[in-house]
Amino acid sequence: MREVVLGIDIGGTNTKFGFVDREGNLLGDYSISTAVHQTIESYLHSLADNVQKGLSNLEEDVRLIGVGIGAPNGNYYRGTIEHAPNLNWKGVVNFIELLKEYYSLPMAITNDASAAAIGEMIFGGAKSMKDFIVVTLGTGLGSGFVANGKLIYGHDGFAGELGHVTVRPNGRFCGCGRRGCLETYVSATGIKRTIYKLLADYNGGGSELASVSFNDLTAEMITNAAKDGDKVAMEAFEYTGRILGMQLADSVALNSPEAIFLLGGLAKAADFIFEPTQRHMEEHMMPIFKNKVKLLPSGLQNKNAAVLGAAALIWHELDSQK
Amino acid sequence: MREVVLGIDIGGTNTKFGFVDREGNLLGDYSISTAVHQTIESYLHSLADNVQKGLSNLEEDVRLIGVGIGAPNGNYYRGTIEHAPNLNWKGVVNFIELLKEYYSLPMAITNDASAAAIGEMIFGGAKSMKDFIVVTLGTGLGSGFVANGKLIYGHDGFAGELGHVTVRPNGRFCGCGRRGCLETYVSATGIKRTIYKLLADYNGGGSELASVSFNDLTAEMITNAAKDGDKVAMEAFEYTGRILGMQLADSVALNSPEAIFLLGGLAKAADFIFEPTQRHMEEHMMPIFKNKVKLLPSGLQNKNAAVLGAAALIWHELDSQK
Repeated sequence: MREVVLGIDIGGTNTKFGFVDREGNLLGDYSISTAVHQTIESYLHSLADNVQKGLSNLEEDVRLIGVGIGAPNGNYYRGTIEHAPNLNWKGVVNFIELLKEYYSLPMAITNDASAAAIGEMIFGGAKSMKDFIVVTLGTGLGSGFVANGKLIYGHDGFAGELGHVTVRPNGRFCGCGRRGCLETYVSATGIKRTIYKLLADYNGGGSELASVSFNDLTAEMITNAAKDGDKVAMEAFEYTGRILGMQLADSVALNSPEAIFLLGGLAKAADFIFEPTQRHMEEHMMPIFKNKVKLLPSGLQNKNAAVLGAAALIWHELDSQK
Repeated sequence: MREVVLGIDIGGTNTKFGFVDREGNLLGDYSISTAVHQTIESYLHSLADNVQKGLSNLEEDVRLIGVGIGAPNGNYYRGTIEHAPNLNWKGVVNFIELLKEYYSLPMAITNDASAAAIGEMIFGGAKSMKDFIVVTLGTGLGSGFVANGKLIYGHDGFAGELGHVTVRPNGRFCGCGRRGCLETYVSATGIKRTIYKLLADYNGGGSELASVSFNDLTAEMITNAAKDGDKVAMEAFEYTGRILGMQLADSVALNSPEAIFLLGGLAKAADFIFEPTQRHMEEHMMPIFKNKVKLLPSGLQNKNAAVLGAAALIWHELDSQK
């Protein structure tokens, strides 16, 4: 009988889950609505119900031995989700405690970017690495730092907020209440803001994106415009890569990683974002670090990285208890 | 018979050493010239000779069980000193390998700031901490980051270069060949450069420091001027504390430490540097981190922190092999 863990990826709109064996094979790939549930109790009831259905749908017999959860503002130490802006459940939710009513198994929770980093370490491109950084470029910018083979959670479990280092004092307004945070420039949302700044600067600049409203503009549209040779779109990637590359040069000075992985929606722009990022990173690095640090796409690209990451979190725990 | 380790702190001018027991008691406190030795062989010969004399001078019988070394550009993984600008021995020196001709004992080397961090963890103010940062404010700015109870050496052993994150693109020239590095603003040398900038801005500004040449000016003189109410000196501390505080707010976002320790010459300015640093750090931190992170002086202040740090490095190794 195959041993599997349940990997749960909680997003503001939907929750995805599946069953993952020690080799990273995903058995069953399911989704339920997160947003429809006004209370955590009703959500957990629906989740457990659907997990049960999912289990019974599997073609082979499995033994469930753990549960891993990736969630916005998930706190590894306390087993909580704390003040997550995009979830209906406000304040501090004792997620693991509440989930114990459904499962008597080892469980662990962390935030999405930390789960992605552990997914990369257990199943992805960082399998042999002890020191690396994962940067997720989605709506915001998340990060997970691994040093000495361990994720850095920090004293209170909220480490890894690379998206909120200040790159422009008095710069763009950030959802965290401050200004000039990295993620206001470098993320799917950040590059969209850059496009709008450039459209303003160049009075449209003859860009095909000048006909798209702010609300309709997506990172994918910006990538497609760049592929068409759109100058505004190409300059936006150069600008984004410069800010990210300079910041990664600083991260290299602090952490001396073997590799940095770029994940998420904006990373799908491939060379449009990787090339300027790498170039500016190398240009701004201290001499002793130059040409040593790999900038890589996720080893879990085109797989369900978030569910695999959540599953990796608990596999990592189970491994280390052996 | 008391078990002790030999702690060696290599500086460009002098090398200090002593014998340290597991409780951090320093038995014997010695110094030899580093600069006088043009070759590493002659240096090591003199060092071993003086260590032998030092041992025989001790009033009680001790058993030497390890050697720890703190050195500029010391590489923990490779046991080397690599391209240290202030030492006579150029290129890559296989320090541990060469020292094996004198001692058949467990040995370890790292850079000064990393040794200071481990000293703080084993003997100082971070004894009970698993996540903290040490910042040394001397001629330059060094740092050691501890996460999950382990120092972050990084993939190639050169992590912890907080002094070389870029705070002002195209800013002050740095010894590393780049511009705008943190240590060009925040260090004993950095605040001296700030004083000179302010003297230029204010045309002397009525400061008592206007009568001191650049080469003669010391951090201690700046502190004394601030104590006298000298406005230029006070503004220099405010400026230095603002840049350091903003950078530490970023470090908190990345590492979520329990405490940050400030050490070294400039840290002796006490409230003149601690107060503005703490104020700007709190002002610039993400809401979830505010009022949680302690900013502290070293727990080894007024002790021989560098020798204790070097000794702590090897005690830490010996402990972890048990």
